[in-house]
Amino acid sequence: MPLLVMKFGGTSVADLDRIARAAEKVKREVERGHDVIVIVSAMAGRTNELVGWVNQTSPFYDAREYDAVVASGENVTAGLMALRLQEMDVPARSWQGWQVPILTTSAHGAARFIDIPRANIEAKFAEGMKVAVVAGFQGLSPEGRITTLGRGGSDTTAVAFAAAFGAERCDIYTDVDGIYTTDPRISAKARKLDRISFEEMLELASLGAKVLQTRSVELAMRYKVRLRVLSSFDETDENSGTLVCDEDEIMELKVVSGVAHSRDEAKITLVTVQDRPGIAAAIFGPLADAGVNVDMIVQNISEKDYGDQPGAVTDMTFSCPVDHVDRARRAIEGARAAGTIGYEDLVVDTDVAKVSVVGIGMRSHAGVAARMFQALAAENVNIKVIGTSEIKISVLIDRKYMELAVQTLHDAFELDRAG
Amino acid sequence: MPLLVMKFGGTSVADLDRIARAAEKVKREVERGHDVIVIVSAMAGRTNELVGWVNQTSPFYDAREYDAVVASGENVTAGLMALRLQEMDVPARSWQGWQVPILTTSAHGAARFIDIPRANIEAKFAEGMKVAVVAGFQGLSPEGRITTLGRGGSDTTAVAFAAAFGAERCDIYTDVDGIYTTDPRISAKARKLDRISFEEMLELASLGAKVLQTRSVELAMRYKVRLRVLSSFDETDENSGTLVCDEDEIMELKVVSGVAHSRDEAKITLVTVQDRPGIAAAIFGPLADAGVNVDMIVQNISEKDYGDQPGAVTDMTFSCPVDHVDRARRAIEGARAAGTIGYEDLVVDTDVAKVSVVGIGMRSHAGVAARMFQALAAENVNIKVIGTSEIKISVLIDRKYMELAVQTLHDAFELDRAG
Repeated sequence: MPLLVMKFGGTSVADLDRIARAAEKVKREVERGHDVIVIVSAMAGRTNELVGWVNQTSPFYDAREYDAVVASGENVTAGLMALRLQEMDVPARSWQGWQVPILTTSAHGAARFIDIPRANIEAKFAEGMKVAVVAGFQGLSPEGRITTLGRGGSDTTAVAFAAAFGAERCDIYTDVDGIYTTDPRISAKARKLDRISFEEMLELASLGAKVLQTRSVELAMRYKVRLRVLSSFDETDENSGTLVCDEDEIMELKVVSGVAHSRDEAKITLVTVQDRPGIAAAIFGPLADAGVNVDMIVQNISEKDYGDQPGAVTDMTFSCPVDHVDRARRAIEGARAAGTIGYEDLVVDTDVAKVSVVGIGMRSHAGVAARMFQALAAENVNIKVIGTSEIKISVLIDRKYMELAVQTLHDAFELDRAG
Repeated sequence: MPLLVMKFGGTSVADLDRIARAAEKVKREVERGHDVIVIVSAMAGRTNELVGWVNQTSPFYDAREYDAVVASGENVTAGLMALRLQEMDVPARSWQGWQVPILTTSAHGAARFIDIPRANIEAKFAEGMKVAVVAGFQGLSPEGRITTLGRGGSDTTAVAFAAAFGAERCDIYTDVDGIYTTDPRISAKARKLDRISFEEMLELASLGAKVLQTRSVELAMRYKVRLRVLSSFDETDENSGTLVCDEDEIMELKVVSGVAHSRDEAKITLVTVQDRPGIAAAIFGPLADAGVNVDMIVQNISEKDYGDQPGAVTDMTFSCPVDHVDRARRAIEGARAAGTIGYEDLVVDTDVAKVSVVGIGMRSHAGVAARMFQALAAENVNIKVIGTSEIKISVLIDRKYMELAVQTLHDAFELDRAG
């Protein structure tokens, strides 16, 4: 029997009515002839409440106890969903992580899957169960303790089950009805995409399009799990939402598929760094050790020559998440104190935003960057830093221009037009 | 190392402050040189919330899913308590039922213990853990599902752990500071007992003194687990509360130790039953089948002789919990319809109460009943039904006299005087 994985996030199971609506969607897939594995999050707000209790009880908590407390939210939803389905005459039962068992590493709070053995759940499908409701976001460590995967882990759970069970598709029900060419709150012309490739989705997810967790998309890409994003709150059918799939499944690859943005960026510049071989390593080594996620890096040779310090000097600029700034500053000042780097000034600019265009067609298409820069220049948007990947071009700009830049680029690449 | 079991009920862990206060009490016992197993209930109100969700989702719920949902409350408290203890530098960890594992039958919602293997917890004590915090009220079925023991099951969990681990004592922390000679809300002269025997406590528990669950006392008696009831909210020391123990540990056995009462009683009379061998079985068989808890039974031979129905007739009176009355009525009327019994009238009186005197010294002391009846007669309290056990005499009276009867008997047996 074809198997489907369906995942419902916290807002989709926020109360008993919403659990009932989600159950209706599951029942419909059973009636269409599917066995279904449902992955549920905790009811919206519950996980935050539990996390709050843990933090108040123990600011530097034992992550094993944190996981044991916090994972209970998903267990409640799983039981309630199974009960609701039974009430609708759908044979269902709940599974907590340790019952499956979902085997993970012992990295509490950020555990990774080791294995999801199919035997227990498959035995119940063989007995006539139609729906296995599995608590998302959690697993079991080799020591027999409860683990969690970190925030957003329920998406990852869903993809992992789809991979383990060879599911036909993994449907992620959420509070939006699909993936858009850009954030509809910023551009009224944003258009829902019918399909998008894993690679593009990965760039969009990591660039701040918060619909899917990056890790779940990575996993889907690795195991070729077809992922569909659709709304819990609308009527949905076979064609609803956006399918995230292999590029082979997409007929016409667009040069640019979407415009992403992120407000949570900061720009840090080391002014007048002495340029010598190994200087980049001397700067970015300590940053990596301090856990700073450095994103874009620009090095521009300065013309200046400072009296008794002959040789080239350079300004080194990089971007990182705004809440990594303090850590970054400490790491760099520490390196200067240790004498491994020298610079004149350290300038932090937290008033920036990142805007990116993403498209798998870029790989075979020149001129995208030029078109992007021209469009921004025409609106007098000054570019501070540029970063690129094979299928993405990102620019760091003043935050006040972010909306303008997104709208301008959406128009420039005609993303409001389908096909 | 001497081992102590400490149990904290829902009001004792109702919020983070109370969990912290409970943790202080645990820490003190560790400092006194104990290893401790702490059994926790869900935070007050949590279980009711979860039960409410289940009932709303599925009125005739699958008890396995009910258990999976409802048991999550205790898991949260266990984790928070372990964190709090760690924060106070007490090496502690939490254990959910399946992790111990607490092996129970599959009778979901009313599971019974099969075994509590000591190996996992003992291994951690051997590694230096001082406190194992165990989620009460739950277990693991042979099928690998989560079970619950039914309401009040955390007391039973505590006693079962004390038995399994050979604990020195099992301390039940609750919202009262011990067992009283009678309900202090009814008699201002009620006096806290230092010690009480298992047998007496069992009668008191089943007679409506709601401090301890009957099942937990039964289990304590069977395994000779010394049980101490004491307050979570007072300062407590080695001598606080009431010790429930074997009668060998009680120096001077009192004739009467306490006066118990229960409002939730009903009296049912079958008027003019034809008296023949087997008539009692014909009445009480169907009642048992219907799950009616029959308590006291009185049969009084009537003098009446009804024309063409020669032979003796009788009135048969029994008491049962007031919420079993409808079931009782249906069972009896069913038996009459089936022709297995005949009677003239069925009279139900729900306006009654039960008052009992309990004392292990009664076994070797005559005259207790006479003294009881005289005291009640002196206050013009009419006795409707009398029931006795080896260490208890109960009377059914009009409910309006209940307080009076309790106070009268408390005085008559001089229960306000110690020793």
